[in-house]
Amino acid sequence: MSNLVIGQSGGPTAVINSSLAGAIDCAFSDQRIDTVYGMLNGVEGLLENNIINLSNMFKSMPSQLNRLKLTPAMFLGSCRYKLSGCELEMERIISILKKYDIEYFVYIGGNDSMDTVKKLADYTVKKGINIKVVGVPKTIDNDLNGTDHSPGFGSAAKYIASCVRDVAYDTGMYNVKSVHIIEVMGRNAGWLTAASALARQEDMCAPHLIYLPEVPFSVGRFLSDIKAKLERYNSVIAVVGEGIKDSQGNYISARYDETDKFGHAKLIGVGDYLKSVVEKEIGCKVRSLVPGVIQRSAGHITSLTDVVEAYNLGIVAVNAAVQGKSGVCSGIRRISTKPYSIEYILEDVTVVANTEKKVPRRWINKEGNDITQEMVDYISPLIEGEVQVPYRNGLPDYIDIRHLDVKKQKYTD
Amino acid sequence: MSNLVIGQSGGPTAVINSSLAGAIDCAFSDQRIDTVYGMLNGVEGLLENNIINLSNMFKSMPSQLNRLKLTPAMFLGSCRYKLSGCELEMERIISILKKYDIEYFVYIGGNDSMDTVKKLADYTVKKGINIKVVGVPKTIDNDLNGTDHSPGFGSAAKYIASCVRDVAYDTGMYNVKSVHIIEVMGRNAGWLTAASALARQEDMCAPHLIYLPEVPFSVGRFLSDIKAKLERYNSVIAVVGEGIKDSQGNYISARYDETDKFGHAKLIGVGDYLKSVVEKEIGCKVRSLVPGVIQRSAGHITSLTDVVEAYNLGIVAVNAAVQGKSGVCSGIRRISTKPYSIEYILEDVTVVANTEKKVPRRWINKEGNDITQEMVDYISPLIEGEVQVPYRNGLPDYIDIRHLDVKKQKYTD
Repeated sequence: MSNLVIGQSGGPTAVINSSLAGAIDCAFSDQRIDTVYGMLNGVEGLLENNIINLSNMFKSMPSQLNRLKLTPAMFLGSCRYKLSGCELEMERIISILKKYDIEYFVYIGGNDSMDTVKKLADYTVKKGINIKVVGVPKTIDNDLNGTDHSPGFGSAAKYIASCVRDVAYDTGMYNVKSVHIIEVMGRNAGWLTAASALARQEDMCAPHLIYLPEVPFSVGRFLSDIKAKLERYNSVIAVVGEGIKDSQGNYISARYDETDKFGHAKLIGVGDYLKSVVEKEIGCKVRSLVPGVIQRSAGHITSLTDVVEAYNLGIVAVNAAVQGKSGVCSGIRRISTKPYSIEYILEDVTVVANTEKKVPRRWINKEGNDITQEMVDYISPLIEGEVQVPYRNGLPDYIDIRHLDVKKQKYTD
Repeated sequence: MSNLVIGQSGGPTAVINSSLAGAIDCAFSDQRIDTVYGMLNGVEGLLENNIINLSNMFKSMPSQLNRLKLTPAMFLGSCRYKLSGCELEMERIISILKKYDIEYFVYIGGNDSMDTVKKLADYTVKKGINIKVVGVPKTIDNDLNGTDHSPGFGSAAKYIASCVRDVAYDTGMYNVKSVHIIEVMGRNAGWLTAASALARQEDMCAPHLIYLPEVPFSVGRFLSDIKAKLERYNSVIAVVGEGIKDSQGNYISARYDETDKFGHAKLIGVGDYLKSVVEKEIGCKVRSLVPGVIQRSAGHITSLTDVVEAYNLGIVAVNAAVQGKSGVCSGIRRISTKPYSIEYILEDVTVVANTEKKVPRRWINKEGNDITQEMVDYISPLIEGEVQVPYRNGLPDYIDIRHLDVKKQKYTD
C-alpha cells in the first residue's frame, strides 16, 4: 500500500484549493497511489491525528472536485505551526504517517510552510525512511523564491486592480478635492501593492501614487507627492504597502508591535495613520481603505491563469513525489511574457523555505512613488482570464468541508 | 423642440448607470423627444451650464449604452447640492433649461436628490412653466419610501453577503478563537447590514451576530453575545451597521462629529471601536473589516435583478415625463415574493424626498442581535441573478465619460 497525504498551511488565497483539487485529481488517476488522505489544519492537525480520507470523500462525487477548484481559502483548514525539528516531534509525525501507510507527503504553503517540507524531507533522508516530501507554493504576497510567481498572487492582483478601479469610479464622480489611501497586503514585499497599477487602462490615471515596502518611505515626501497630484487631479488615489518603513527601517505605523509565531511583525494601521497626516497637513476629504482579508479570498473575482496554474502545480508536485523526488517544491518558469508562456519546474525546497523575494529596485521608479513598465509587463498576464464561478441563491457556490460531513468521513483509530 | 435633460446625484451605487442607460434608450426611441442632454455633476453642474449632448455621444454608438448599463458609480458625475429654493436660483435653473429647450427633467438620486425634484416640480407648477420633473430612485441604503426597495440595494446586498462568506471561509480555516467585526454602510437604516444574513447557506453559520441601527446598541450586551458565540464557534463574525446608536441616541463611535451638507452625521469607526473593546475585554484575535466605498460600487458582482430593475425604472420615469407627469418618482411595488414578482409604479415625490424608511422592528429578532426569516425572504430575491460583465485585460471593462471625449461633446454657448 502506497498512500498519499496532503495538507494546507499558512494564510489563505483564492486558489489554494485549486492546487488541492489538482493534486487529488492526479493522485486518483495514478495507479501507484492507493488512498489519498488529508490533514485537517496542516501538520498541527497531523500531530493530533486529525486525518480524513479524501478518497472516500471525493471518489464517489468527482464533480465536487470542480467546486473545490473554485472555492477560496483552505478546504482542509490551515495552521501556523513551525516544526521545532526535535526528535520527539519528528518521530511522532513519522509514526502517524506510517500508521496510514503514507509514502507521499504533499504540503501546500508559503515560505514558512516550506520550512516544514524541508525539515521533514531532511529527516526522512537522514533516517532512511521511504516517505517523499514535496511542496506546492502559494501566497498572495508573491514573495517566494524559486518560482517566477506564486499561485494566489494573480487572483489577489486582479482583485486589487479591480478594487482600485471601482474606487476611482466611485470617487471620480465628485467635483471636490479628495485623497483615498488604499492599504494593500504583502508584508515586506511590494508585489501586490504594485499590482494596483494594472487599474490604469484607457484614460484611467488611478492609482496616482504607489509606495512599495522595498523603498524607504518618507512622510514628508508622501505629502508633497499628494499635494502635487492634487494640483492636477480632483481625486487622488495612493496605494501603500502594509509593510512600508522609514529610512531607519521602522514600520510607518505598526500600532501593534507583537510578532506572529514566525517572528514577522503584525502590521496594521498605516493607511489610517497616513489618512490622519493628510487630514492635518492638507485638510481635504480623505479616506483610508483597507481591503484586509477580503483581498486574499475573494473567490468571485479570480484569475483564470492563476486557477489553472495552481491546479497544475498540484499535479506537478504529486507527479514528483511518485517519481521518487523529495525535498522539492513545484514552481513556474516564465518562458516569455508576450505571448505569455510558462513551464512547470521543480525547485529545491531550500531555495523557497524561510526566504523572501523582494521587488527589484529597478522595477520601481527613481522617485520611489510608482513602478516601471517592466513591472506592469511582469504582472499583466497573471490577472488574465475570468472564471465562471457557479452561483446558488445569488451567491458563489463554494464547497465546505462541513457539507461533506467530516465526522462520518474522518478516519479515526 | 422638446428636449430632455438627465442628471445623477448623491452617493454612487453599482446600477445608477443602468437607470441612466434605460432612460437614454427610452428617450432615443420616443418620437416626442428630440435631443437628450446630460448634466455633469447634477444640478450643481447645471447651474454652471455644464451640460453635454448625450444624443451626439450615444446615438452613433448604441453598443456603448450596454457598457454604460454595467458600469458602476455615476457616468455623468455627482453632486451633493441642496437647492436653497430661492427665487434667484430657481430662475437661473429655468433659464438654462429654456436655453436648451428642455421640456423633461429626469433626476436619478436618493432622498436628498428627490428634494431637488420636488422643489423644481413645485416651482414649475407655481410659475406655469411647461417642464416635467421626474425622479428615479437609487441608494444602497434601501431607505427610500414609496418603493418596495431601491435600485442599488440588491447589488450592494449581494456584495456584502458574498464578502461575509469570503471572510467566513478565510477565518474558518484556523483552529484558533477569533472575532471578525464587519462594519456595513446604510446610515440610520439597517437594510444593508441585514443583507449579510444571506451569507448563511447550507451549513454556513456566519454571520453569527447582526446589529442594526434600528435597535439601541449596548456594548455590554454585544460583549456577552460575542462571548456566548465563542463558546460554540471558533471563528465568530459580527456585522454592525455604521449607524448603530446607544439607548441615548448617541452614535457608538462617531470619531467625527461633523455633519455633511444635508445635516447627516459623518459616521466612521464603529468597527474599529468595537474591535478595541473585544481585544480589551475578551483578548482573543480580533479584526475589524470596513469594506467602505468598495461595497457601493463593486461592478464585478452585481445582481441581475437589480440591474434590470434599475434600467426599467429609468424607462418608467421618461415615459411618465412625456405623458405629462411631474413631481413623481418611479418605484417598485412587490406583487409577490415566492415567486418574486413586481410592477413598476409612480409615487408622489413628496413621499420620497427627505424621508428615511427604517427596518420594521418586527423584522429584527427580540434580542436585537439578528434578523427574522421575513427579512431574509424580503431581501433574498433582490440578489438573484448574475451579470456577465465584459472584461478587458483581466479587468471589468467599464465606460468612462473621459473615453468619449467630453470636451469635444460638451455643449457650450
